Amino acid sequence: MSLNRVGIVGAGQLGRMLALAGYPLGVRCLFLDRNAQSPGGQVAPILSGELQDPALLAQLASQSEVLTFDWENIAGHALEPLEAMTLVRPPRSALEASQDRLQEKALFTALKIPVAAHCAIDTQQDLIAAARRIGLPGVLKTRRLGYDGKGQFTLKHHADIQLAWDAMGAGGLIYEKFQDFSREVSIIGARSASGRSVFYPLTANVHRGGVLRYSTAPFANARLERTARTYLQRIFKALNYIGVLTLEFFVVNGRLVVNEMAPRVHNSGHWTIEGSVTSQFENHLRAICDMPLGSTRTIGHTAMINFLGAMPDRDTLLSLEGLAYHDYGKEPRPGRKVGHCTILKKAAKDRNLALANALRFIEWT
Amino acid sequence: MSLNRVGIVGAGQLGRMLALAGYPLGVRCLFLDRNAQSPGGQVAPILSGELQDPALLAQLASQSEVLTFDWENIAGHALEPLEAMTLVRPPRSALEASQDRLQEKALFTALKIPVAAHCAIDTQQDLIAAARRIGLPGVLKTRRLGYDGKGQFTLKHHADIQLAWDAMGAGGLIYEKFQDFSREVSIIGARSASGRSVFYPLTANVHRGGVLRYSTAPFANARLERTARTYLQRIFKALNYIGVLTLEFFVVNGRLVVNEMAPRVHNSGHWTIEGSVTSQFENHLRAICDMPLGSTRTIGHTAMINFLGAMPDRDTLLSLEGLAYHDYGKEPRPGRKVGHCTILKKAAKDRNLALANALRFIEWT
Repeated sequence: MSLNRVGIVGAGQLGRMLALAGYPLGVRCLFLDRNAQSPGGQVAPILSGELQDPALLAQLASQSEVLTFDWENIAGHALEPLEAMTLVRPPRSALEASQDRLQEKALFTALKIPVAAHCAIDTQQDLIAAARRIGLPGVLKTRRLGYDGKGQFTLKHHADIQLAWDAMGAGGLIYEKFQDFSREVSIIGARSASGRSVFYPLTANVHRGGVLRYSTAPFANARLERTARTYLQRIFKALNYIGVLTLEFFVVNGRLVVNEMAPRVHNSGHWTIEGSVTSQFENHLRAICDMPLGSTRTIGHTAMINFLGAMPDRDTLLSLEGLAYHDYGKEPRPGRKVGHCTILKKAAKDRNLALANALRFIEWT
Repeated sequence: MSLNRVGIVGAGQLGRMLALAGYPLGVRCLFLDRNAQSPGGQVAPILSGELQDPALLAQLASQSEVLTFDWENIAGHALEPLEAMTLVRPPRSALEASQDRLQEKALFTALKIPVAAHCAIDTQQDLIAAARRIGLPGVLKTRRLGYDGKGQFTLKHHADIQLAWDAMGAGGLIYEKFQDFSREVSIIGARSASGRSVFYPLTANVHRGGVLRYSTAPFANARLERTARTYLQRIFKALNYIGVLTLEFFVVNGRLVVNEMAPRVHNSGHWTIEGSVTSQFENHLRAICDMPLGSTRTIGHTAMINFLGAMPDRDTLLSLEGLAYHDYGKEPRPGRKVGHCTILKKAAKDRNLALANALRFIEWT
């Protein structure tokens, strides 16, 4: 018998879209979040308080048949006691690996998944040595809790070493060789407890200022897709993974170099709501609740555009043929992801035209 | 500026699917229903009490920018005072016409939409005279509050007149000539306040015991579809309609004979969630909230099967490729519509095979 009651740590837009995907399946979600009026809390019941509060986490676990995550940075020591109370999916090992860029890269390397040259940085001497050994340009990043380009500093010249250290200097950093990529792509897959897995096609992603601006899918490149699936499959097996997992890559000289993994549904997979038979949100629930996984077949060519800062004019966007609008119910704030839209077309060419048109409108208003 | 707060009278599965379609649009629904644990009340806030309670209706209206209906049988005198408080969409005239089979047929006749021969029945003498004039077989129906084959009696032989009268005898009936149809089809369209309208393709419907068993779409018959659109368009204009409207037809000797109208989203349009770019639920909200209407383009061939009485085994159904599952959150009860599934395939032939397979499973368990 598959499961029906899902506890979700964090109630952002990812949690909101999970809960909305759950209702038709008969799956009821319960959130834990600081803010009861968060995107998830607007559509499903919520426990209100700190995400790592042991008593609240225990309460969430006791009311859920399986626990999962909108926010994957919960500490391992907070998770461990919950494993005795309920199922925790994806597994703690996957969350822990994704929380530390160094540990994550060690996992990739062990699984023979190409990564950028990198090294741990705890002192300014480490950074000077790394810049010499690995070379410039490079990127200095926090090992933990970075997202959307936050906690990063790009070094181009030797003089940047001092600037970077002044800006970020502390222990717990990583220096990575800058990747001169032609494209950024991601792959999303889901794996069930029985070990069955499904994969969405590659998505092409365009970032601006470290934040995902838009994605297009499918990104048709059979060779890269085969390789990306192989890499994702290796991680699935190594971690005995259950749920949806995302891998982000740079395409460098026609080869995939992995950037990072996310042990959850992902912004670059929002197009699957309209563009695939089964969305990433439904497939994550199917996987963690022990239901059969759903078809990842695409039903057209899609583009997804993030709404950053504030929602654009709804009526103008909805007048565009084949556009689906997603409002996360958030207060506007500069740079904040407050919603997205997905454009669905039969042909890639029509999709590209509509994307350019919608982007122009969104960025001008 | 389009609207965001929708009050819904009745919180059944139609209301539930409206509310779920509203969240991504930024539309928040508030229900009124006797049962706070109703399908709609499980996914959105609800006022709990009688559907025709004037104080509760006024409260619903005061908290909504527009009122609409999951249950369309609310009395005109209960609706009228609300029109001074908020927008009521679809208009009261459409609800009233659909509430009385005699008034409904008078509207169809006035708009030159073919209807079955019929006549009002208030006494047993009326019935005897009608059976003679219109002929047998025929169907004796209540004029008001009939649904899913309830409040109907089919007369085949002269002796059935007495049986029918004993079973249903009272004023407020209608006798209709039995339609020897080859098919039942329906058309669903949406009209905005600006008078723009969109139409879904024809759906073919199969009833058993008066209840919709399954539907397939698109039902490809360009001639009938053109005619059905013309009829729906006439009603849109005559009633200055706003929202989604459904017309159900019999196909008799290759011609459409209208059976009834529903001034709301309709069971025969549930396939639009997966099978169309914009679902009937989203288009109803777009219409009543003054947003641009969405594309009704189909994205495959679909079949929708109702779950009657109790939900079938979820895991078995979800193992069928391209099947989407919809649980309404209702308690099981013999004959009750508790959910549905939609099968989406690229080709009609594959859809038909999958439909037969799923139907066999659902009816055996």
